[in-house]
Amino acid sequence: MLTVLFAAGAARWPTYEPHLRAAMAEAGLAARLVTDCAPEQADYIVFAPGGDLVDFTPYTRCKAVLSLWAGVEKIVGNQTLTQPLCRMVDPALTAGMVEWVAGHVLRHHLGMDRHIVNPGHRWDALPPPLAAERPVTILGMGELGRACGQALAALGFPVTGWSRSPRQVPGLRCLSGDDGLAQALACGQIVVTLLPATPETANLLDAARLALLPRGAVVLNPGRGTVIDDAALLAALDSGQLGHATLDVFRVEPLPQDHPFWAHPGVTVTPHIAAETRAPSASRVVAENIRRSEAGEPLLYLVDRARGY
Amino acid sequence: MLTVLFAAGAARWPTYEPHLRAAMAEAGLAARLVTDCAPEQADYIVFAPGGDLVDFTPYTRCKAVLSLWAGVEKIVGNQTLTQPLCRMVDPALTAGMVEWVAGHVLRHHLGMDRHIVNPGHRWDALPPPLAAERPVTILGMGELGRACGQALAALGFPVTGWSRSPRQVPGLRCLSGDDGLAQALACGQIVVTLLPATPETANLLDAARLALLPRGAVVLNPGRGTVIDDAALLAALDSGQLGHATLDVFRVEPLPQDHPFWAHPGVTVTPHIAAETRAPSASRVVAENIRRSEAGEPLLYLVDRARGY
Repeated sequence: MLTVLFAAGAARWPTYEPHLRAAMAEAGLAARLVTDCAPEQADYIVFAPGGDLVDFTPYTRCKAVLSLWAGVEKIVGNQTLTQPLCRMVDPALTAGMVEWVAGHVLRHHLGMDRHIVNPGHRWDALPPPLAAERPVTILGMGELGRACGQALAALGFPVTGWSRSPRQVPGLRCLSGDDGLAQALACGQIVVTLLPATPETANLLDAARLALLPRGAVVLNPGRGTVIDDAALLAALDSGQLGHATLDVFRVEPLPQDHPFWAHPGVTVTPHIAAETRAPSASRVVAENIRRSEAGEPLLYLVDRARGY
Repeated sequence: MLTVLFAAGAARWPTYEPHLRAAMAEAGLAARLVTDCAPEQADYIVFAPGGDLVDFTPYTRCKAVLSLWAGVEKIVGNQTLTQPLCRMVDPALTAGMVEWVAGHVLRHHLGMDRHIVNPGHRWDALPPPLAAERPVTILGMGELGRACGQALAALGFPVTGWSRSPRQVPGLRCLSGDDGLAQALACGQIVVTLLPATPETANLLDAARLALLPRGAVVLNPGRGTVIDDAALLAALDSGQLGHATLDVFRVEPLPQDHPFWAHPGVTVTPHIAAETRAPSASRVVAENIRRSEAGEPLLYLVDRARGY
């Protein structure tokens, strides 16, 4: 009988318990699912930041730590965590992200805001260009970036995807490295950031890189708040270099009431809703990884500590 | 040498002339393209409403009238028009329609408006359901309805398509007839109308049919203004039966400044931009139909006068 410790916050427990229980049973695992146990008894830990568990040292029996979050930046640097760590790749999270990105790309592409808010009742019958005439750039070609890029390509947008190391993604033009980044930014009328939060990506979109975008470009950030230099973003909006920014993630969340993003007419704030882990599908991913581990098969979505994701 | 009369408005001529000329040449047609000629000289007429041509009787030589509009309701009842009449099915028009429909469906699905206009700076981290949990109904399974339905299905929405006569469309649940309409309306949290304007579809969405929708449903009308009973729509919005209506087409366009749609908080007006014919692609369709006619092949998109489209 395995012991699986749920260390992902008391608030999530009622939502997750039935789904985890069902997923374990479905995977053929005999497991005791607990929110508390003697550290040396835990075979696996289901983890999300914000709970009590910060020192992994006494979890000597633990064979893997399974994150409920796609982003592991809050735990990957924890020196006491020596066990294998797996990110969450939840198909429902990917679906939600694709919907948010496709929706906001189309919103900006179609210029919806001037119809949603139109106090002067202007009938301005200027049709937007076709998607085929609107290049979109996606920074980050991980699971989420690839899925969003392919959905946008299916809608007719010419999509450029950028990643640090070279990648091939069917339907997208893929660029990589520093030169590739400059090229990817130069052509993106709408730029979507889906990079992990690592020391390398911190403030990646700074004043110099924002200046590479075509004038009036739109930035969408449903990825990680640290990727954009907030002050540089505001300056680029004020100068007209950027047309708009729609942001779902921030350095501090909820976004503090005195943050200038709230009042800036060029910024739309969405409250970290672009993608969230869903209990039913995430529980199946957790159970599948425990099954694999027990069967001696390789774990899915294993974090590379050197890269940080 | 064929004579092709451009009777689609003087304003469109400068845009269309070079594209029509190029498309005719590409199709291997020797044609004289004119905006005026003796009626008995015209071999083909390129038509759009609003011009001078209302009596087709003297065009005795004319082999087909080729509409630049997808909707032919303004011409199909013209008793002097006995020549074959073809609708426009422009791939660029279809692409534009898919973009508008996908964009506004996602906008309502994601609840974007409360983030775009958020004077209270509310951080309301309630994630939307997934598209898979949001049934969409499309009324009209013509070229545009099918393309929009399939694009929405690809984004994960369960799509029901309704048409008067039975149809099969891969990826969509298809219903037809009066019983089918009631069923299609009953399940549509977002309803998109893409029906032609015919006597049968006039006020199709009246008070009784709007009452069949799930409470709080959203109506999108990028099709034809006559399909919705305006007063019933406003009453359904006021009672909370409808959550919102986003309308691109109206009985009178531009929408008059004193029309209640402008000021109603539950209505978004877009200025007939959902889909417009584009000169390069439409010109190729026109040239292809002339080529077919000259080669004795069947015409594309021939209007059925009895059905009215």
